[in-house]
Amino acid sequence: MSTQHSIDRATCADLDAADPLAAFRERFELPAGVVYLDGNSLGALPRSTPAHLERVIREEWGTGLIRSWNDAGWFDKPRTLGDRIAPLIGAAPGEVVLGDSTSASLFQVAVAAARLRPGRNAIVSERSSFPTDLYMLESVQELAGDGSGDPLERRLIDDESDLDAVLGDDVAVVVLTHVNYRTGRMYDLAEVTRRVHEAGALMVWDLCHSVGAVPVDLNAAGADFAIGCTYKYLNGGPGSPSFIWVASRHLATARPPLTGWHGHARPFDFGIDYAPADGITRFRVGTPQLLSVAGLEASLDVWADVDLEALREKSLRLTELFIALVDTRLAPWGVEVVSPRQSAKRGSQVALRFAEAGDALEAGDGYAVMQAIIERGVIGDFRAPDLMRFGFAPLYVSHTDVWDAVAVIEEVLASEVWREPRYARRGAVT
Amino acid sequence: MSTQHSIDRATCADLDAADPLAAFRERFELPAGVVYLDGNSLGALPRSTPAHLERVIREEWGTGLIRSWNDAGWFDKPRTLGDRIAPLIGAAPGEVVLGDSTSASLFQVAVAAARLRPGRNAIVSERSSFPTDLYMLESVQELAGDGSGDPLERRLIDDESDLDAVLGDDVAVVVLTHVNYRTGRMYDLAEVTRRVHEAGALMVWDLCHSVGAVPVDLNAAGADFAIGCTYKYLNGGPGSPSFIWVASRHLATARPPLTGWHGHARPFDFGIDYAPADGITRFRVGTPQLLSVAGLEASLDVWADVDLEALREKSLRLTELFIALVDTRLAPWGVEVVSPRQSAKRGSQVALRFAEAGDALEAGDGYAVMQAIIERGVIGDFRAPDLMRFGFAPLYVSHTDVWDAVAVIEEVLASEVWREPRYARRGAVT
Repeated sequence: MSTQHSIDRATCADLDAADPLAAFRERFELPAGVVYLDGNSLGALPRSTPAHLERVIREEWGTGLIRSWNDAGWFDKPRTLGDRIAPLIGAAPGEVVLGDSTSASLFQVAVAAARLRPGRNAIVSERSSFPTDLYMLESVQELAGDGSGDPLERRLIDDESDLDAVLGDDVAVVVLTHVNYRTGRMYDLAEVTRRVHEAGALMVWDLCHSVGAVPVDLNAAGADFAIGCTYKYLNGGPGSPSFIWVASRHLATARPPLTGWHGHARPFDFGIDYAPADGITRFRVGTPQLLSVAGLEASLDVWADVDLEALREKSLRLTELFIALVDTRLAPWGVEVVSPRQSAKRGSQVALRFAEAGDALEAGDGYAVMQAIIERGVIGDFRAPDLMRFGFAPLYVSHTDVWDAVAVIEEVLASEVWREPRYARRGAVT
Repeated sequence: MSTQHSIDRATCADLDAADPLAAFRERFELPAGVVYLDGNSLGALPRSTPAHLERVIREEWGTGLIRSWNDAGWFDKPRTLGDRIAPLIGAAPGEVVLGDSTSASLFQVAVAAARLRPGRNAIVSERSSFPTDLYMLESVQELAGDGSGDPLERRLIDDESDLDAVLGDDVAVVVLTHVNYRTGRMYDLAEVTRRVHEAGALMVWDLCHSVGAVPVDLNAAGADFAIGCTYKYLNGGPGSPSFIWVASRHLATARPPLTGWHGHARPFDFGIDYAPADGITRFRVGTPQLLSVAGLEASLDVWADVDLEALREKSLRLTELFIALVDTRLAPWGVEVVSPRQSAKRGSQVALRFAEAGDALEAGDGYAVMQAIIERGVIGDFRAPDLMRFGFAPLYVSHTDVWDAVAVIEEVLASEVWREPRYARRGAVT
């Protein structure tokens, strides 16, 4: 974007015409008049999903009834779909399985990891993790102590520059989010894993904001555990199941805490004592929520056709274009880019805020501005206290979408329409 | 059924004609030629479900996109649907919430219960619980010790006659299944709860096989916690979410272990420390699997119209009819009724087995017999080592269904067709 001063809408249309992923947009249902920049929160609906769900509901459930647990492969879906997620995260077959919510899955892997490092009494995470990770870790601390009866200690870093200060031979597990949910800042997966391993700790990655957004290679990085979300960039549908990845070398010894019957070695023996299944299956818990699993299944059909390198290239083109347009057209209102400007350190999202020193707007005004933008069809979201987040899902966001989004933001700021009382914050905000 | 010797198919048709619940059958999709007696494992498809899911998928997800978390009430569904389950189990508004899998929800309530009885070092359950409950309790034992650093002790009873022997002032929690998954035997909810409370312990009920099958009144019984399943008699769809009930008196002090952001007091403040929400919301974990939640929502529209006393009356008519017909027509082959013959002690299912002394068939032959029956359109299931289970969902099973099912079983036994090799057990059995 060295020629950013010369960008116009026609340039964006040219970029769209040359976009090797352009055809994917036709595989999603998007409402007319909407530029959807919140696929990092809830991915758009694949066009094939309604018919797939209809078939699962009418044929597999309605007609197949109980027989579909075998005949339609329901029982094994968490494994078979796990194997289809594997190539998206650099995992091997048999290393990925679907879980319950990402929160529950984080508990599942964090306790299992802590148990592999007995006698170490600290867990490291970071202050800017998506909060549910920190909340679950409080419980992991309390429940999965080091055997002394005392809770584990939780140490929170601000960023990787703090890692050396907190890593020591007392650290059992480090839990970090690969791409930050607020800023889109991305860690170097391999480099951070290496430093954590040097300290003898195990590395748990939260991939919620990276899977389907950026290339991920867990095995190349030598990581230990990971969890992720399928309802954001993977388009599995609202609340679609999380996934769990465990490095093959840990599968024989890892002991997850949620010891449900779907993780049992012989679930249909109905014995009274728990015996973990071989391999990743032991991370399963109870009966999977099949309609939500079916939503994910439909979207993975789309993902099977995606070239991840092309995805990353387009993602960077989109975020670089957005940043360039923000710099040229929105800076006058004190808008600043919070996300890393260095491409290698940025996921597929960009966060903006009003500079505290800005005379026209204050940080909290981002809420009202976002509401006014959304009302005009450009959907991003606001994260307290001051961030306007925009996600760029490369499969269905175009370069002209980026152009149009910035034009709408500019218009909202220039007209000051966002000052109308109906956009003001009221009570709880989602 | 005192006149059982005179029952014929016409009698059954008369009973159907007089059945006050007969019209409910039209609200379910059932394949032609099938008598479905496995609604205790996976409930049938309500006719309104496909259209409801289509609307949720196309309008709420596809068009509403991220906005539907607020505008379509997604975020609150676990609470609002919990309130719709409440009348089915004798719960008050604000006492029920949807969970992840029933296994995860059992963990959630069992740890919370144990924490309310610190210093007590034993958990009581029963050998014939559905195994996932026992498996999860192994983990509860290990993780939620009494503070001494030692695991809790697990004591398993065979039935309520063992209760006095195991209850003492060292017991923190008793976890029992109201209606047994194998035999359909039903505990006296109030009486058992009373005895458990006399010992100072807390009572956790597993309602998987009772909700939608028999009347349940948790508050009248004075119970403490319960979990249950919505994909059996409630027809929520394969793997639809579990529910959690907590007595109001415990809501301010209960501390569940899965401390996800949906259970936080202020989830959208995105703070770094966990603070439990008021009330039942604190038992929520992560983002609900919305398509599966939507399946449950559709089925609860059916359940809103059901008179639970009429449901129980019909359930007993069906199971009494089945037992009478088994006694008269299947006894010659050594078939015996395992379920309680006393109505008050029986849920809405009946288990059969071949008497060990039977000269014609052995216990394990039930597997092949069940396969042959299923092939002829009568769907029950087999539970190792020897049980043939039949569930009688009163909303869509008719008296003539019962007649026809017994006729098919009789024909399979009389013809010995089940001895054909293709019905024999092969490998894992579901």
